[in-house]
Amino acid sequence: MPVSPEIREAIRQGSWIRKMFEEGAFLKAKKGLENVFDFSLGNPYGDPPPLLALELARLAANPPPDLHKYMPNAGFPDVRQRVAEDLLKTTGLAYAPGLVVMTVGAAGALNVALRAILSPGDEVIVIAPYFVEYLFYVRNAGGVPVVAQSADDFQLDLEAIRAAITGRTKALLLNTPNNPTGAVYPADSLRGLSRVLSEGEVRTGGPIYVLSDEPYRKIVYPEAVFSPPAASLRNTLVAYSHSKDLNLPGERIGYLAVSPRAADAAELADACVFCNRVLGFVNAPSLMQRVVAGFQGIEADLSVYRRNREMLLTTLLGSGFSVVPPGGAFYLFPRSPVEDEMRFLAAAREENVLAVPGSGFGRKGYFRIAYCVDPETVERSLPAWKRLGSRFFGRKGGRG
Amino acid sequence: MPVSPEIREAIRQGSWIRKMFEEGAFLKAKKGLENVFDFSLGNPYGDPPPLLALELARLAANPPPDLHKYMPNAGFPDVRQRVAEDLLKTTGLAYAPGLVVMTVGAAGALNVALRAILSPGDEVIVIAPYFVEYLFYVRNAGGVPVVAQSADDFQLDLEAIRAAITGRTKALLLNTPNNPTGAVYPADSLRGLSRVLSEGEVRTGGPIYVLSDEPYRKIVYPEAVFSPPAASLRNTLVAYSHSKDLNLPGERIGYLAVSPRAADAAELADACVFCNRVLGFVNAPSLMQRVVAGFQGIEADLSVYRRNREMLLTTLLGSGFSVVPPGGAFYLFPRSPVEDEMRFLAAAREENVLAVPGSGFGRKGYFRIAYCVDPETVERSLPAWKRLGSRFFGRKGGRG
Repeated sequence: MPVSPEIREAIRQGSWIRKMFEEGAFLKAKKGLENVFDFSLGNPYGDPPPLLALELARLAANPPPDLHKYMPNAGFPDVRQRVAEDLLKTTGLAYAPGLVVMTVGAAGALNVALRAILSPGDEVIVIAPYFVEYLFYVRNAGGVPVVAQSADDFQLDLEAIRAAITGRTKALLLNTPNNPTGAVYPADSLRGLSRVLSEGEVRTGGPIYVLSDEPYRKIVYPEAVFSPPAASLRNTLVAYSHSKDLNLPGERIGYLAVSPRAADAAELADACVFCNRVLGFVNAPSLMQRVVAGFQGIEADLSVYRRNREMLLTTLLGSGFSVVPPGGAFYLFPRSPVEDEMRFLAAAREENVLAVPGSGFGRKGYFRIAYCVDPETVERSLPAWKRLGSRFFGRKGGRG
Repeated sequence: MPVSPEIREAIRQGSWIRKMFEEGAFLKAKKGLENVFDFSLGNPYGDPPPLLALELARLAANPPPDLHKYMPNAGFPDVRQRVAEDLLKTTGLAYAPGLVVMTVGAAGALNVALRAILSPGDEVIVIAPYFVEYLFYVRNAGGVPVVAQSADDFQLDLEAIRAAITGRTKALLLNTPNNPTGAVYPADSLRGLSRVLSEGEVRTGGPIYVLSDEPYRKIVYPEAVFSPPAASLRNTLVAYSHSKDLNLPGERIGYLAVSPRAADAAELADACVFCNRVLGFVNAPSLMQRVVAGFQGIEADLSVYRRNREMLLTTLLGSGFSVVPPGGAFYLFPRSPVEDEMRFLAAAREENVLAVPGSGFGRKGYFRIAYCVDPETVERSLPAWKRLGSRFFGRKGGRG
């Protein structure tokens, strides 16, 4: 067999996603791109900030001598310093630059952290609904994902997490604001989690690291407040990406930061630098390190996301859908009007609406709307959502 | 224990390298940067081609709309097309663009290929002396590296390779031109390897893939000719990097290409795209994909490397050292005048000369000179090499 059976099986299991995208592409070809409302992709909307584009053009026109060269595997020291300064503002914790590793996006950061921490068979708690890639990341490092469901409002279910801890638990993957639900975990919830993990550490006999995946940290709506997990949870590693705040998803630039309060922080940071090297990332792209250095403190532009969120929430709630208003990110995760969300999504496709089934995120009976699209697209989609509401709810209102 | 025992042990085993670099840094601080002859680092010498710098500045000043956005995990289709066209010229084989995956350098490409192919316990043959990272790459995917020594002239020892094949052999890592020896494998040697692997495949019952790591493909001296492994070996995956030909090592841009003749080529390419995604690379940096697209056919500038190679070879051979003239890359791998090369390198440090012990590449009793440095540095180092020759060889000449 040419391909590893594990990879072949993973591809087979994910083949429905490919099928879905193919159906979407077919729909677009048939109906015309502008007549299909594609809410299936989590690609951030918009361009990088104008000042960043200027900085890139400046560096490209007058390249400093080391612009494209190898640097230490952890990244340029001055860039790590800038990240550490921003983390102090965000978390209140004094990160030494040596605890920051520039990475190939947050996906790179998570793979690096997991490889540094896990031995084969070690367990990592993943909270559902989850970003589906987490399962692969854990398995890449020989780990075993253990799923804990969140509560009905997608907030942390501390009892479910407590029940998921075993003697082999080495880490927990946290994602606030959350993809796919938009849930933002408040500080008291994180403090509760801290207690649960501390109790768990008595059983495991070692630290349970929190891998805090925070690419949506700056995309938070007025109803919510982002509470940095590192401020509440001692053994936190922050995985950050500039895909969303600076609209640079294709450039693969982010970082990993070990909390100064984490157990064996310096040794762990060294191990992460080593893993950044040997996993084949080697270092984060050099030009982009230089580009993002001066934009650590910038606020993300939420205007489009706020407008889209408002339009969709109002229409969906008014049409009978059951949906928890998201505190952050750019997703809605409504309950499907029928238990089998694939049936609902087939009906949505008849209305030229594309979305992703909740089963892809470990929660059947829901679907994800990614509203990181042109507001005009959202506006034109509203009648379709209303018709779907009438068709599935009629006068009866929502299912749950 | 916070860090995985495997990673901790790997770091411990590599700690002598860190110690060596620390000693080098100490030497530079003490003697002054310009008085230390540092031949320890494989960083390519020089800047990107001027036309490439112009193209980067042009893209940065007038960014096309998708410059920084996500694209298919395999890369921009038109960039893959350009790579496929260049591979046709290099190998004579018609690569469909679908067989090309843009990657985070050759290191990313190798990790992707290994993850796609290997199951835990599968074996990969590595030819010594080797780039030390190969061992980690194989282990990242759960594989077991099996070392086969090359011949005394660093050419392939087909009998050693034959003896290394077992029922679990899934791949062989090939590196021509070679780091650290500079060896370039001629076509008849590769054809011999093809026969050995075909015989081996009878035992394994499946393909033995050749992972051909070719970052030095364009750095070949007039005495040698680069023979593309894909032209001689059916089941070849090319891993390429633009670190050396375009002097972009920090940018992490390269590709992986599955031979159109490889067993199950299309399925394997799909698996590589999948692994590029789930290993956390996601895609090769987008701006750099655009930048390198038009520079696939460019020749590398060898002027500095040729001059350095000539100066060092003449001086080393004239001083009694035993060294095989390298056909390519920018390394010399002389025999140490004493069996314990660490003793020789300590003496070299007294002459302010830094190099890397052969034991770091799986071949004790040798050392590596990376001559990707300023020719003026090489020139000023020549008296030191002569003194080392006198000290170790006296009038007796070389050791072997």
